[in-house]
Amino acid sequence: MEHEHIRSAFDRDLEAIQAHLMRLGELSATALHDATLALINRDMALAERVRKGDKALDEIDELINDETAKLIALRAPAASDMRLALGAMKISNSLERIGDYAKNIAKRSEVVSQAGRIGDTSGTLRRMSDLVQRMLHDVLEAYIKRDAAVAHELRARDEDVDQIYNVLFRTLLTHMMEDPKTITSVMHLHFIAKNLERIGDHITSIAEQIIYQVEGRRPDEERPRSDTTSSISGAEG
Amino acid sequence: MEHEHIRSAFDRDLEAIQAHLMRLGELSATALHDATLALINRDMALAERVRKGDKALDEIDELINDETAKLIALRAPAASDMRLALGAMKISNSLERIGDYAKNIAKRSEVVSQAGRIGDTSGTLRRMSDLVQRMLHDVLEAYIKRDAAVAHELRARDEDVDQIYNVLFRTLLTHMMEDPKTITSVMHLHFIAKNLERIGDHITSIAEQIIYQVEGRRPDEERPRSDTTSSISGAEG
Repeated sequence: MEHEHIRSAFDRDLEAIQAHLMRLGELSATALHDATLALINRDMALAERVRKGDKALDEIDELINDETAKLIALRAPAASDMRLALGAMKISNSLERIGDYAKNIAKRSEVVSQAGRIGDTSGTLRRMSDLVQRMLHDVLEAYIKRDAAVAHELRARDEDVDQIYNVLFRTLLTHMMEDPKTITSVMHLHFIAKNLERIGDHITSIAEQIIYQVEGRRPDEERPRSDTTSSISGAEG
Repeated sequence: MEHEHIRSAFDRDLEAIQAHLMRLGELSATALHDATLALINRDMALAERVRKGDKALDEIDELINDETAKLIALRAPAASDMRLALGAMKISNSLERIGDYAKNIAKRSEVVSQAGRIGDTSGTLRRMSDLVQRMLHDVLEAYIKRDAAVAHELRARDEDVDQIYNVLFRTLLTHMMEDPKTITSVMHLHFIAKNLERIGDHITSIAEQIIYQVEGRRPDEERPRSDTTSSISGAEG
């Protein structure tokens, strides 16, 4: 009975931490949604709200860290529960970082808004952001449901994000070469794309945590990462 | 006596983990050093060694994660020891990320080596890398010595890295605008600079962990982050 009692106290504490985690997930999803909207609509009031809102995310992340440390110290969980507790900390860290990237997108959208439009870059960025937002929604749901199948799927879906990024990177290089006046704003648009690509990587990390929690081992294969732009050299001819 | 016994078993286990951490620190410092050398000397054999060597860092990071989880489960440490154990995990994660950035620098140096030299960019990157390498050395020493004073200093030193990055960012924009043929390689050089700037951020995170472990609370002020390039718009005129 003593064991039963300890187990359920752990579960109760962990559920409280997971509630914070869900709140953090919602806030990071909203930040990403709003930062993208601010970029597309050149809505600088919204961009500023995203920037200012990031502090709340940092605070929840710290709270989750503290609560999880307390939980572990107090309940001394066994191996599989320990995985759940440490996983909550790692997922919290990823969500907080996603919030940071959203904030950075909001910041850059303020600069980009002062420049002319660069081809259909906004459209591509919006598509990329939509993909990433759906992935974020699905990974949070998979976490709550302990759904490893969806988590495996999400690792594959991140490759689509990387594909869009790779194509966009080449397009942006072409824009810069054809019209050097656009270089500064293209650099910022490129950073925004890179931020979205990194958000995809963090979602993949969360998916891998879910797999680890459910299956007890880390995904075997090297994580598929398809940002191949670090070896692009062709454009220079 | 029982308590004494448990305490010293914790200490012994933690020391073993810290030895892995130091090994990881050395490997990440070597990776950064070699990646920079490969870039400067266009030494592609060295760049390839850095790329291939990254797997070893990932493995040590996983080992540290597993060992620390076991330590916590087995020893059920009290609050201050818990901080040490969780801190070791976070520091391990930062060191592994530093290794990733070094690997990315090595990858990009292979592309950059095919292009002409861009002003004195290599010199600036080398200076930036030297600064960061000294910081990495000092933060590892501060960790072993539990030296919070040096950790506080390191947070300030990261601002110098950010300063160099900010100046370099503007210089690179100018190069691209003056000679659009250089755009592709300048983009890669810029990413290399950004990687060094991020390594500085990770060293700052490690310094903050040290402060937290020694002083029992996180550094008060917002971490000084001085990458101000996200609001550069002047160059477009």
